[in-house]
Amino acid sequence: MSAAADRGATPGPIAPGATIGILGCGQLGRMLALAAARLGFRCHVYGPEEERPAAAVAAASTHAGYDDEAALETLAREVDVVTYEFENVPHETTAFLQQRLPVHPPPHALAITQDRLLEKAFLRDAGIATAPFAAVSAPADLDRALAEIGTPAVLKSRRFGYDGKGQVLVSSPDEAAGAWAGLAGAPAILEAFVAFDCELSVIAARGPDGRTACYDPVRNIHEHHILARSLVPAGISDALAVEARTIAGQILTRLDYVGVIAVELFLCDRPTGDLVVNELAPRVHNSGHWTLDACAVSQFEQHIRAICGWPLGTTRRFADAAMENVLGDSARDWQALSAAPDAALHLYGKRRISPGRKMGHLTRLFPLGAGPHAGTEHAGVPGRAGTARR
Amino acid sequence: MSAAADRGATPGPIAPGATIGILGCGQLGRMLALAAARLGFRCHVYGPEEERPAAAVAAASTHAGYDDEAALETLAREVDVVTYEFENVPHETTAFLQQRLPVHPPPHALAITQDRLLEKAFLRDAGIATAPFAAVSAPADLDRALAEIGTPAVLKSRRFGYDGKGQVLVSSPDEAAGAWAGLAGAPAILEAFVAFDCELSVIAARGPDGRTACYDPVRNIHEHHILARSLVPAGISDALAVEARTIAGQILTRLDYVGVIAVELFLCDRPTGDLVVNELAPRVHNSGHWTLDACAVSQFEQHIRAICGWPLGTTRRFADAAMENVLGDSARDWQALSAAPDAALHLYGKRRISPGRKMGHLTRLFPLGAGPHAGTEHAGVPGRAGTARR
Repeated sequence: MSAAADRGATPGPIAPGATIGILGCGQLGRMLALAAARLGFRCHVYGPEEERPAAAVAAASTHAGYDDEAALETLAREVDVVTYEFENVPHETTAFLQQRLPVHPPPHALAITQDRLLEKAFLRDAGIATAPFAAVSAPADLDRALAEIGTPAVLKSRRFGYDGKGQVLVSSPDEAAGAWAGLAGAPAILEAFVAFDCELSVIAARGPDGRTACYDPVRNIHEHHILARSLVPAGISDALAVEARTIAGQILTRLDYVGVIAVELFLCDRPTGDLVVNELAPRVHNSGHWTLDACAVSQFEQHIRAICGWPLGTTRRFADAAMENVLGDSARDWQALSAAPDAALHLYGKRRISPGRKMGHLTRLFPLGAGPHAGTEHAGVPGRAGTARR
Repeated sequence: MSAAADRGATPGPIAPGATIGILGCGQLGRMLALAAARLGFRCHVYGPEEERPAAAVAAASTHAGYDDEAALETLAREVDVVTYEFENVPHETTAFLQQRLPVHPPPHALAITQDRLLEKAFLRDAGIATAPFAAVSAPADLDRALAEIGTPAVLKSRRFGYDGKGQVLVSSPDEAAGAWAGLAGAPAILEAFVAFDCELSVIAARGPDGRTACYDPVRNIHEHHILARSLVPAGISDALAVEARTIAGQILTRLDYVGVIAVELFLCDRPTGDLVVNELAPRVHNSGHWTLDACAVSQFEQHIRAICGWPLGTTRRFADAAMENVLGDSARDWQALSAAPDAALHLYGKRRISPGRKMGHLTRLFPLGAGPHAGTEHAGVPGRAGTARR
């Protein structure tokens, strides 16, 4: 099948040899392109970024903005399906493309997950537990919300937050004015501070036929609001793992989603255990990088399979794993990292190093059952509760 | 480090961001390029082939012949190290490049393994068991060799054989004239027909520091002289596995080799077991494809690590595996292949399908110990003994 073929005429899967368009040229786009190549696809990556590590492994690339309609038009002619590597692609861009060819995950899911308020409302409507929340558009809203939700709470901008940016902790009502000023008037959401025991995530996928597949839940450790490590198994009970998977499945189905999604959860410190969804990412996710080395089908390939209408691949795990991000200057330690035993090093081909920048990751593998002992090592860090970052 | 840096001045490893030149643009070059990208390298692939699947995943590509000195000169300026994906690259090409920058594996190893007679003589001199053999340059040589070695025997062209091409079985002395005619006067080698129990291979690597690493031996099943399946574990005793690894290590050291090598062996049907080296491939090898999915570091990454002077990666296996090639028309069954359970499908992005052409492969994974039962399933196929292909 080529881009010139009568797309959409037959609803079957997209054949090897077709071209996949990827919006965004960072490390996630790069790893998507590498996974697509494994299945015999070509990739065309598109984005405005100065440094575009995905372009070095793609058959084609376009360096243009997300509002460049001529360039988007050309992209739409040259590829068979479009996806994206991050959730801040403008909704207008995906809507423009969707008029011309299939775009997965669906733009409506992007619109919801781009906005913390819409996302939380979606979850609430789906009957899925979240932290108590309220919309905040003005100082008076914040006072009302604080009265309703109490403190401590976290004021977050509704849009464009990531890695802890656009978030202010409100420890007492008299911090309201400062918090509001901190967000510079951006539409916001106040969320109750969740006293959690640990942070988990689930990487799940859904195909156009409605089938879903879910990897084992992962325990995540953040430092300075940035993911530092992901551990699998997560050291939680089977019942909790089933609950986490069920939540992910409900979200995928209710969004009529196609592709990979990441569901971040808080495990609250209660006798029975209680899962609260923190946020969604409508894309492959840092906390799923371990699947590259511990599974036959990685999250990246799973996403490509889903958006191309292929059967979802196995999510079976053949090893325990501990993934560590390589951030900023630690990328200069590549010689030491390359010598880590029983480990897979991934470097993203970025030249510019800045503090906290994701330069690569290292996944240590362990035989099944001999893993990173997530349950004992990192349980109980409530001091960082509520500082959820995006 | 860039290509402009004073290469060779410091003997340290080649840093991420550097560019690796790969001679040959087929599936092995493609998988090498994908593995290099994982470590943050750029690749520049070079070759004369019409269809060049490696080019779609490389940062740069050159479509030129192996005797195009101007193009090779340009390649040498733009890359930091050169390697190759197949052993029929002219020795002159690698010698030309070696005067300008590091070339791994070393051209002298290429010269030896390109010629069955030199290869067998090298093995004999190293004290490693092979089938009895004799050089054949004329009909009189063949008569003499048949008298010495006996029948059945196999007459093989010394150079450019692969997948059973350039080989004639000689069942009795009166077939000598026909066999000689079949090779059209090419310099040849007569090898005794080995009554083997099964075919094994070992994928091993050596770094410039002399350290070696070896993956678990694999059992190979050929059909129509082409590798059909590779099974790991191979279903052999620990003692035999140690012997196979030891042979590979001896070969690597004696060749002063840098990179990945494949050693193909016959396990002969004797009470104690007896390993005979059939042939060497100075490159990554089809029978090592399972390492992509069952190991943290694949044979492709291992090769990149070795040629860049990085520490060799772990060869630990986290799953049992059964790799099947996807040949010729069976690539049209990609929908069925994509639905195989607990399997990793790899398609090479080739458009032209012809009988026996390697279009992809499928690796089925099993938890350790639950594997493909190589030992019981495929033992004892002496009827195909001696039909060793290259």
